[in-house]
Amino acid sequence: MWRDLTPIGRSASSGGYFRQPFTTPERELRAWFAEAATARGLELEADSFGNLLAWWRPDGTEGKPAVLTGSHLDSVLDGGAFDGPLGVVSAFAAIDELRERGVTPAVPIAVGAFAEEEGSRFGLACLGSRLATGRIDWAAARELRDRDGVYLADAMAAAGLTGEPERDAAAIGDAFRDRFSCYVELHVEQGRGLVDLGASVGVANGIWPHGRYRLDFTGEPNHAGTTLMEDRRDPMLTYAMTALAANKQARLAGARTTFGRVEADPNSTNSVPSRVTAWLDARAESDEVLERLIAEIARQATERAERDGTRVELTVESASGPVRFDSGLAGLLAGGHEEGDWPVLPTQAGHDAGITALAGLPTAMLFVRNPTGVSHSPAEHAEVADCLAGVHALADSLERVAR
Amino acid sequence: MWRDLTPIGRSASSGGYFRQPFTTPERELRAWFAEAATARGLELEADSFGNLLAWWRPDGTEGKPAVLTGSHLDSVLDGGAFDGPLGVVSAFAAIDELRERGVTPAVPIAVGAFAEEEGSRFGLACLGSRLATGRIDWAAARELRDRDGVYLADAMAAAGLTGEPERDAAAIGDAFRDRFSCYVELHVEQGRGLVDLGASVGVANGIWPHGRYRLDFTGEPNHAGTTLMEDRRDPMLTYAMTALAANKQARLAGARTTFGRVEADPNSTNSVPSRVTAWLDARAESDEVLERLIAEIARQATERAERDGTRVELTVESASGPVRFDSGLAGLLAGGHEEGDWPVLPTQAGHDAGITALAGLPTAMLFVRNPTGVSHSPAEHAEVADCLAGVHALADSLERVAR
Repeated sequence: MWRDLTPIGRSASSGGYFRQPFTTPERELRAWFAEAATARGLELEADSFGNLLAWWRPDGTEGKPAVLTGSHLDSVLDGGAFDGPLGVVSAFAAIDELRERGVTPAVPIAVGAFAEEEGSRFGLACLGSRLATGRIDWAAARELRDRDGVYLADAMAAAGLTGEPERDAAAIGDAFRDRFSCYVELHVEQGRGLVDLGASVGVANGIWPHGRYRLDFTGEPNHAGTTLMEDRRDPMLTYAMTALAANKQARLAGARTTFGRVEADPNSTNSVPSRVTAWLDARAESDEVLERLIAEIARQATERAERDGTRVELTVESASGPVRFDSGLAGLLAGGHEEGDWPVLPTQAGHDAGITALAGLPTAMLFVRNPTGVSHSPAEHAEVADCLAGVHALADSLERVAR
Repeated sequence: MWRDLTPIGRSASSGGYFRQPFTTPERELRAWFAEAATARGLELEADSFGNLLAWWRPDGTEGKPAVLTGSHLDSVLDGGAFDGPLGVVSAFAAIDELRERGVTPAVPIAVGAFAEEEGSRFGLACLGSRLATGRIDWAAARELRDRDGVYLADAMAAAGLTGEPERDAAAIGDAFRDRFSCYVELHVEQGRGLVDLGASVGVANGIWPHGRYRLDFTGEPNHAGTTLMEDRRDPMLTYAMTALAANKQARLAGARTTFGRVEADPNSTNSVPSRVTAWLDARAESDEVLERLIAEIARQATERAERDGTRVELTVESASGPVRFDSGLAGLLAGGHEEGDWPVLPTQAGHDAGITALAGLPTAMLFVRNPTGVSHSPAEHAEVADCLAGVHALADSLERVAR
């Protein structure tokens, strides 16, 4: 199963993954998902947004709220093999294991794969789960555009998806909560928490708040040779200072900031740029810390813009509040194991599980140890033994919640 | 003539020009040039590199070294209407004026349009004039690649040009010097020198040395949320500090530096980038000042890279030494006018005239006043009266040198 998945959307040069939503690699990923479901006699369900479900409905479970597990199959640009797919593969493998154990759940179990979790194409993370849980209106989502200016609705249409839901967002959320009793997502850890704790598997207790901001620095285009330094209004300088300020302020606040994406216009070697646009990713332990952090970065950027004769405009592209996962559910999963209780830890990474939790569904996450902590990179890794421990842990968890 | 030229390669949104070599807009520019030549009974000549000549060969001038005038038709990305085309249009207009005056030159006059003067596609400024004067080998030039990875030879082939010369570079240079007696290029000024002097037209005495450098900053790709700030190797920070250092050092040295082009990889909002590549344009009054400037910027970049756990590599993409134009020729053009001598001034911008001067051809440049000094921008401008003064000045100059 894993072997069939690894070549899809992989770059021959970096070894990294380019699994963008509504593209050819994603079509192959969907075909892989359908095959994995069919091979297990699971019933396939696809919604209009590109989310997939594979249903295990043993006799006598009809009409009962189901346990949802799974994760996502898309990747960041040049990402790793594990972020997302490990949770989907482990979900199918956990069902295999439950069947080998002779366990028949008392409620249906659905394996899900949410679309565009990374937000790497349309800039909004967890887009598929937001749509599936009614956390975003289709009317707002359809207007999202990728970096080539393609509207979400058009990208979906090109992939054979209508987008158009049959119900409004509130009704979608109600139906989602009626249909499922809980969501358990397994994911590779994206830091070194479990390495430090010496554990293969852990349970998450929450997600830090997280914002993405677009900063537009505008100046005056000009000739790179003949324009006196004093006469320039160079937005690249304002951006450069802002990038350094964001780094410093994040360290001071015990938070995280990243400028991973930047675009200059006209992006010509011998012209002072007219505009530099850069995207700031920021996360902190609380909304208050995050707000103070962004305010301070914006203040310093504006101050520098005044000195540079440029302007800076900050647009919030997405803002996710803190998530606290269901503590009862976490306790049910973490406690009473032969090898002792599983450790409980927070994460700074957003997940579809954060969306389902915010949508009011009891939600838990399992993390699998990442030996280097590296993620969103071709070097992302998890040992086979830890992945297998993850499958056992997920099988145990599903057995407990599907009674 | 000017009216037919203005819509070609113009952006509807910015009003700026995107006249890249070996593209559709350039094909239209070449058609425009051919039409202007044919309308005047000038004989068209195109070389294998994309350079164009239109010959005025009055009876009795056969075999005599010709006077070359003209400029270029390509633009930077989102550039202005005047940089380049003003010199070509003025050359045709000056021939019209000489004919109206009843002047018949004693030697042929050729109007030239050199290809890829800006280097905006293949990174090497004055590519067409370098090839035409043997200042670069075809074997080296053909390997140049644009930002999409397209080789120069392939881009030329797609535009119906062979590239392949019949002679080697040394023989091309000899033939060029045999064929022409001098080059007089008219160009819009790209600073405010003539504004300060209160003159419509001036004569250039030289060009500052100019280098273009690619800086590759490499780090370690990682997750933007979960990776501790202390654990990162973020090349964006090294770049940002370098951009600020280049600005400061240029001011201290009375020089010019610009980071107008930057590309991050994978350029994803929620990933620490693995690589940032930025292009530095630097110019100074002498080779010594330029070398010291680049060495100091490289030193500070390397020092910061050590702190950031990143690496930086500097590659010289082009280096043009200082150019001193022929002082005898400048004196011949500048002196003895009814309105008094034309002012003589230096420039920080590279031009094909710099290449022909380095190739050993006596060369002069005329500048036309630029009211704001703005260039390489949609806002680039010259007043009609000054443009007409430029045509008269070029006609006067051609009359003097074509005796």
